[in-house]
Amino acid sequence: MPVNLQAPRAQDLFPVAGVRIGVTEAGVRKQGRKDLSVFLLEPGAAVAGVFTRNRFCAAPVLVCREHLAAGLGIRAIVVNTGNANAGTGEDGLARARATCAALARHLGIAPEQVLPFSTGVIMEPLPVERIEAGLPAALADAQPDHWLRAAEGIMTTDTLAKAFSRQVQVGGRTVTITGISKGAGMIRPNMATMLGFMATDAAIAPALMKPLASELADGSFNRVTVDGDTSTNDSFVVIATGKAGNAPVTSLDSADGAALKAAMLEVARLLAQAIVRDGEGATKFITVRVEGGRDGDECRKVAYAIAHSPLVKTAFFASDPNLGRILAAVGYAGIDDLDQTLIDLYLDDVHVAVKGGRNPAYREEDGQRVMKQSEITVRVGLGRGSAADTVWTCDFSHEYVTINADYRS
Amino acid sequence: MPVNLQAPRAQDLFPVAGVRIGVTEAGVRKQGRKDLSVFLLEPGAAVAGVFTRNRFCAAPVLVCREHLAAGLGIRAIVVNTGNANAGTGEDGLARARATCAALARHLGIAPEQVLPFSTGVIMEPLPVERIEAGLPAALADAQPDHWLRAAEGIMTTDTLAKAFSRQVQVGGRTVTITGISKGAGMIRPNMATMLGFMATDAAIAPALMKPLASELADGSFNRVTVDGDTSTNDSFVVIATGKAGNAPVTSLDSADGAALKAAMLEVARLLAQAIVRDGEGATKFITVRVEGGRDGDECRKVAYAIAHSPLVKTAFFASDPNLGRILAAVGYAGIDDLDQTLIDLYLDDVHVAVKGGRNPAYREEDGQRVMKQSEITVRVGLGRGSAADTVWTCDFSHEYVTINADYRS
Repeated sequence: MPVNLQAPRAQDLFPVAGVRIGVTEAGVRKQGRKDLSVFLLEPGAAVAGVFTRNRFCAAPVLVCREHLAAGLGIRAIVVNTGNANAGTGEDGLARARATCAALARHLGIAPEQVLPFSTGVIMEPLPVERIEAGLPAALADAQPDHWLRAAEGIMTTDTLAKAFSRQVQVGGRTVTITGISKGAGMIRPNMATMLGFMATDAAIAPALMKPLASELADGSFNRVTVDGDTSTNDSFVVIATGKAGNAPVTSLDSADGAALKAAMLEVARLLAQAIVRDGEGATKFITVRVEGGRDGDECRKVAYAIAHSPLVKTAFFASDPNLGRILAAVGYAGIDDLDQTLIDLYLDDVHVAVKGGRNPAYREEDGQRVMKQSEITVRVGLGRGSAADTVWTCDFSHEYVTINADYRS
Repeated sequence: MPVNLQAPRAQDLFPVAGVRIGVTEAGVRKQGRKDLSVFLLEPGAAVAGVFTRNRFCAAPVLVCREHLAAGLGIRAIVVNTGNANAGTGEDGLARARATCAALARHLGIAPEQVLPFSTGVIMEPLPVERIEAGLPAALADAQPDHWLRAAEGIMTTDTLAKAFSRQVQVGGRTVTITGISKGAGMIRPNMATMLGFMATDAAIAPALMKPLASELADGSFNRVTVDGDTSTNDSFVVIATGKAGNAPVTSLDSADGAALKAAMLEVARLLAQAIVRDGEGATKFITVRVEGGRDGDECRKVAYAIAHSPLVKTAFFASDPNLGRILAAVGYAGIDDLDQTLIDLYLDDVHVAVKGGRNPAYREEDGQRVMKQSEITVRVGLGRGSAADTVWTCDFSHEYVTINADYRS
């Protein structure tokens, strides 16, 4: 059961001028599932992506990087589920390229104008012939208002589709932002999530796209974790079609640029948090906030140590305020000169530990009250400086084990 | 159910001349449990310890370090379960010192000659008055042949006591080594395990004790992980009573020194592996061997990434050869210039992946056969050099979640 996450409704998702989406059932791994999606972009769209830092990155990730570097202008995106085309060596690369070539032939464009994405089981050959066979149906389905279908079409172990939309004024024009994401396990994105796609019709100077995509990923997908496993296929793509008619945004620090970035970040964060809310087996949504660090890096280290500790995560699952486990995780997070006598710990508004020891005023029933909530903020004070950072995670339940012990079968 | 681990039998454990052990029920946390153990050492014993690197180390760990540094000669060890005396601030230190002072009064020695150890729940005040009240009964129980009682007396979530004994010839004398350990969760020792105690009656030059303890921990407790959580209380203590009558070992590289060290390492490794075999919810014992690294450090990084991945651990639990998960963990282990096209993966004798892709000769049923075993070796070749290292871990089951969601209640 996702934590405080609703299924998106088609009517809440604004189409983005310049983007059409088609989805079909290609039977990549199983029959009767939407598993093949295409995004068709009108000429002139600016596109940037950020990709997994996993050194075992998947074939489609390698091909995406090549095709973005080719600079011919991206005109299409093709996404399959059921097979990650990762751990597949040279043959996997050939199959990812074949997918792009097949879609390019249909559209009369160059293969380098297509970005391929795959998600699903690792180390099995991509059934490229099924994808090729499915392309005509996907193309015939292409419509501007198919964002919800696409959100459904990229799901794997997700229990709900993830899609959000916002509109914002940029240069006197109403600009639309719509994004989708997928992912529920093998989630500790490093540069991006499993798969996230976001489009806006705003005009944005092409040179801004790459830093914008990095900043958005950094404030959203790079701050969530389900199980600490950085995927081989993490990809986050940002598209700006330029159809809104605004004067192109040439600086992210201008009033227009800042407004647009804030709205895009909001969508990115909702998409990233939705992945945690729908994390495999999740019953709680946990915000881990670490303050008082010397720099953001050490705050993140501590936050991730807490967010990845199986002991902390099972205590949240049990609603058991066994909060010493959080202190233990702070201690092994890797800050060598940490002074435990400066550590503070809060659970929402409850001050649990002070100067590294139990707060004399702390009462177990107060901790218990917060632990029973479905949304909990853990706040740690390091007492070393003024930096802070936040990550979002979920608890660790029986259901996680069940899902991951049964995923392939 | 522990994996291929038998309960030790009292008759298999050799007493160590110069060490007497007493155990009692002090009711530290619950009634009817052996939870207080004392080790009494004759004058002249050489003692060294290695302790957790968790910066949130427990009060008894801080006091142990002080007392070893004081150099008065250690004469007694006191261990309680039920309460870790960690995350307890200044008050916790005072309580650890009070425990030592109480035992010292009974024995007519200095408090600095006592080493205190605690294990159990974190961030609750140590009930030192119950420990003090229990000391007379523990002292009255002291006998040389109580190693099994001590192994039972230090258990927390362990399902079996852990104790091993060996004898070896050193300088023409038969020398005895006996050790015990405890721990089943919050296990990723860094310098030591939860608790391990090992004694020999061999005479060893005091200056060798500290490097010997480090080497033993490094080859045993520092190579195992259950859940990646480095405890606040990890401690491993090595005692040499010198009662065997051998000419003191003055070099670990001499024939005698090497023979003694090898036997002690064997006992340390059995104790450390026993912790994994009895890991919370463990159904399988996994050896992760990483070869072909540039140095041992990067081999360990990769081995721990595999050993800590919840996805890998749940796949082992399910006996599902979902081996792409292992490749993914190799990829995110933190070797920035890793070349995925050089990676080999073996499951016991089955060659699963070659050059970063699925081995064409690999058959799912071969992977399945190995995954069903209770003891499995994962072997990864990095193709970067000639270094290698090994860690031992267990799988991740429903039972782990159950144990850790219920531990305090």
